[in-house]
Amino acid sequence: MGIFTRDSFNSLDDLLVHELKDLYDAEQQLTTALPKMADRAKNPTLRKAFQSHLQQTEKHVQRLESVFEHRGLEPERETCSAMAGLIKEGDVILDADGDSDVIDAALIATAQRVEHYEIAAYGTARCFAHHLNDEYAAELLGQTLDEEKATDQQLTKIAEGAVNPSTTGSRR
Amino acid sequence: MGIFTRDSFNSLDDLLVHELKDLYDAEQQLTTALPKMADRAKNPTLRKAFQSHLQQTEKHVQRLESVFEHRGLEPERETCSAMAGLIKEGDVILDADGDSDVIDAALIATAQRVEHYEIAAYGTARCFAHHLNDEYAAELLGQTLDEEKATDQQLTKIAEGAVNPSTTGSRR
Repeated sequence: MGIFTRDSFNSLDDLLVHELKDLYDAEQQLTTALPKMADRAKNPTLRKAFQSHLQQTEKHVQRLESVFEHRGLEPERETCSAMAGLIKEGDVILDADGDSDVIDAALIATAQRVEHYEIAAYGTARCFAHHLNDEYAAELLGQTLDEEKATDQQLTKIAEGAVNPSTTGSRR
Repeated sequence: MGIFTRDSFNSLDDLLVHELKDLYDAEQQLTTALPKMADRAKNPTLRKAFQSHLQQTEKHVQRLESVFEHRGLEPERETCSAMAGLIKEGDVILDADGDSDVIDAALIATAQRVEHYEIAAYGTARCFAHHLNDEYAAELLGQTLDEEKATDQQLTKIAEGAVNPSTTGSRR
């Protein structure tokens, strides 16, 4: 440890805990962002998808709390700069003017980036839990991973319906 | 347009250009981050993967320039806050102390988040290009998308080799 505050990763256990804290913060940032995205969405199916993903996200927070507890730790947040950046990008869309179908397509694009971030993060955390023989954590992290993947696929389906010829503008 | 600077998305064309500018910035941020990740990696296969992905990333920048040019636009960057956040998370790992195998696992975790961000972003941009009947752009964006997916898979394989029992610490 130098004069700066610096993380130490001496074991895979340290790294898993770091990942859990990062996800615990990311999911809570998301519970603040999703209601705004639902409010901005015009397409009722998209609005409903954001609302139901908010309920799922609250469950994901609880699952992470169970994993912390199982590992004998207090749940703790560590700022997830990536999620902060993703949400900042989303704010550009929330504040934008324009055609409501195009704004919906932009909201989907933002949400799919968020889902992919979470798919990568939960995939990694589950892998670490497996390596540590913590099958309880691996199971819970895997449940959330499956839900993030399902949400991503659902968003793709909505996009296929929502992005229609009226939003395609002119071909350059 | 209000008193604040606010984006306008009146057509899918506007949104595609926004995505291209975001990716053009993201890829260039990455060309600065990847050499640091290569330097920090201990595993020679991982170091080589970061070095070869840097070369790919430079090609991705050029492909985006070709897409801008094809659409009659000057290449332009628009700050990609998500990539800035992802790189900030990576800096925590670059500055960390600890076991070098664990640091390698953390570098892979960071890189896979980056790849997933790009997979989502290129997937969306390619979809928009298709809808706009811009098959030239769709083809180039698809080539990069395939390379991002291949890199993600390569990182998974390296992780399976690199995360060995000596790094797994104690089971809580």
